[in-house]
Amino acid sequence: MSSRVAVIGIGITEFGELWDESYRALITKAGTEAINDAGIEGNEIDGLYIGSMSPGLFSGQEHVSSLVADYSGLAGIPATRVEAACASGGLAFREAYISLKSGLMDIVVAGGVEKMTDSPTSSVMITLMGAGDQEWEAFKGATFPALYALMARRHMFEYGTTLEQISEVAVKSHHNATLNPNAQFKFNVTLKQVMNSPPVAEPLRLLHCSPITDGAAAVVLATEKKAKKLCENPIWVEASAISTDTIALHDRRSLSRMDASIRAAKYAYEQANLKPSDIDFAEVHDCFSIAEIMAIESLGFCKPGEGGKLTEDGETKLDGSIPINPSGGLKGKGHPVGATGIAQIVEVVEQLRGDAGKRQIDGAEIGLTHNIGGSGGTCVIHIFSNR
Amino acid sequence: MSSRVAVIGIGITEFGELWDESYRALITKAGTEAINDAGIEGNEIDGLYIGSMSPGLFSGQEHVSSLVADYSGLAGIPATRVEAACASGGLAFREAYISLKSGLMDIVVAGGVEKMTDSPTSSVMITLMGAGDQEWEAFKGATFPALYALMARRHMFEYGTTLEQISEVAVKSHHNATLNPNAQFKFNVTLKQVMNSPPVAEPLRLLHCSPITDGAAAVVLATEKKAKKLCENPIWVEASAISTDTIALHDRRSLSRMDASIRAAKYAYEQANLKPSDIDFAEVHDCFSIAEIMAIESLGFCKPGEGGKLTEDGETKLDGSIPINPSGGLKGKGHPVGATGIAQIVEVVEQLRGDAGKRQIDGAEIGLTHNIGGSGGTCVIHIFSNR
Repeated sequence: MSSRVAVIGIGITEFGELWDESYRALITKAGTEAINDAGIEGNEIDGLYIGSMSPGLFSGQEHVSSLVADYSGLAGIPATRVEAACASGGLAFREAYISLKSGLMDIVVAGGVEKMTDSPTSSVMITLMGAGDQEWEAFKGATFPALYALMARRHMFEYGTTLEQISEVAVKSHHNATLNPNAQFKFNVTLKQVMNSPPVAEPLRLLHCSPITDGAAAVVLATEKKAKKLCENPIWVEASAISTDTIALHDRRSLSRMDASIRAAKYAYEQANLKPSDIDFAEVHDCFSIAEIMAIESLGFCKPGEGGKLTEDGETKLDGSIPINPSGGLKGKGHPVGATGIAQIVEVVEQLRGDAGKRQIDGAEIGLTHNIGGSGGTCVIHIFSNR
Repeated sequence: MSSRVAVIGIGITEFGELWDESYRALITKAGTEAINDAGIEGNEIDGLYIGSMSPGLFSGQEHVSSLVADYSGLAGIPATRVEAACASGGLAFREAYISLKSGLMDIVVAGGVEKMTDSPTSSVMITLMGAGDQEWEAFKGATFPALYALMARRHMFEYGTTLEQISEVAVKSHHNATLNPNAQFKFNVTLKQVMNSPPVAEPLRLLHCSPITDGAAAVVLATEKKAKKLCENPIWVEASAISTDTIALHDRRSLSRMDASIRAAKYAYEQANLKPSDIDFAEVHDCFSIAEIMAIESLGFCKPGEGGKLTEDGETKLDGSIPINPSGGLKGKGHPVGATGIAQIVEVVEQLRGDAGKRQIDGAEIGLTHNIGGSGGTCVIHIFSNR
């Protein structure tokens, strides 16, 4: 185990409609917080990995690797932007992890950022559809709510999953978000409010959909040697796994599961030498409430088709047997797409440090992050422990 | 030397205005050619790295990692898009190299692709400006020809570099392109034609500017063990170096040199234990002709300020002492921005294999690639040898 990798610093901005903050201000704020949290100086950092989905379409800015290095006062440093739609953050963390495993670097920062609210909503919807297949999905008028609505319908048809069960995901996520000072939506919603919210793409309603959000998050990663020297409570990366799938939903073998999630979970559990029942809690990609139900099935926390019941039974709540999205998830905390994968990791680190305040999961020792790009074309999974 | 990395396969499409080819068709064509050239099967590949600058702005498509995996028949495989403006290709190669160094992968494909000619030219100019600083450069109306024109003016002022010298770069590049079957511009231009071409941003004229291009390139990388098993003529990666700089030109200490190039070159020579005079030839980033002159100075092929004279003296021609851009460079071969860094590597590998046909450099054993993002915010340098 001489080549383990640890997270030794975390930083995150408020998530929300942050009209007074620019893209570069958000990511440098999160990055500075992470560096300060790690107790290191800028000149100790060997590289930057930035996850960002569409800074070009959202605000004309590409080349954000150079931009972030520059505005962090680190011009000169190796810097790489990584993109895999809404899995950009998780994948940036994975590339940072690989760079440490290579022996070429000792300390790197992985950040994620998106500034989405400067564009009109119609334009944001078109930009986000860049995560799907332009020629075969976007061209036909599909939007992401529509694609996830197809998955929801199929899941309901195959397994008898109910809209009540799907809605309970949002009720739980909003509750957790009330305990997260950085969350976009710090208010509770009732089952009735979710069920009666305006339809977006049937059966999905407004309160089943994650919002449009500005925000950034960053973490500092270090090799085992550096981590032990610099940090009293390193959080160890036990597994880093990715799988891809067809970019278009209609090319998949099933609409009611995500094979990329199932494969990535298998690799991650093998790498960590753990099984689903060993995981104390998880941050999963609930871009739409149905996605959380599919995620907990893919991750093996229940059998296929039983995610709705697990949720309805309260097992995914903070005091349940497998708490899901203690942060509030994409639904409650907000979903600045490129930042989400890193924000999930920030939450897991806070929980494993015992620093999660009112949403702390008692005795949490092993946490998992599950980050999806598009309708399941990419899935990135990481497992962390505090031992 | 047990952990060396080699290139064992290459593929490249024609470069040009390819109205009958889509983004996905271009990259899968180059990728398939590289895989066939390596003599491997798809299931032997452990990962994909795709360099692409602005598929979102050019055609609405993000998440190209999943798209390329899917359309290559490799859905499931780890796939990552890397972006650093026009250095996206070089940086994708570097991340592929790091992934092999990590011991997590044995064979990976690094590809680069851009489909630029589907947009109107005015829109392409705006998209490309995403490589600069949106808030401080684009907002003021700067374009890339304008930024490089500032560098040209300053270089002329400081060193007495003449427009004739700058123009000789284009004359040489066009000549080399006539010997490259994949080049966009397979015709010669005279010094007079370059000097009299329409002004774009004074002192730069049309024939000092690289074109808007569609194209893709791909290479297969392998660990030393796999390379020796699979390949008779592996081309070894002797150095992989990157440096960044401020994204905005006006924040730099000098307009007449690129510090990112100078730093990356220093790292690369140290890694390879080589000096500039050991390099037999180089593919450098001549997005504008002045950039080639600055590049050969940064790379130490001559002293600062002497790049114009070196060019004028014919030393950078195919039969000169240090041939530059035997492929025709960005000017003659074309510049599909995300593909360029990989295309440079394809050319170096062809030369080091002795397969470069009419543009073969006799006895070439060590070649260098130099890939720039923006106005110098990123520089990626690789050194290769055939021994």
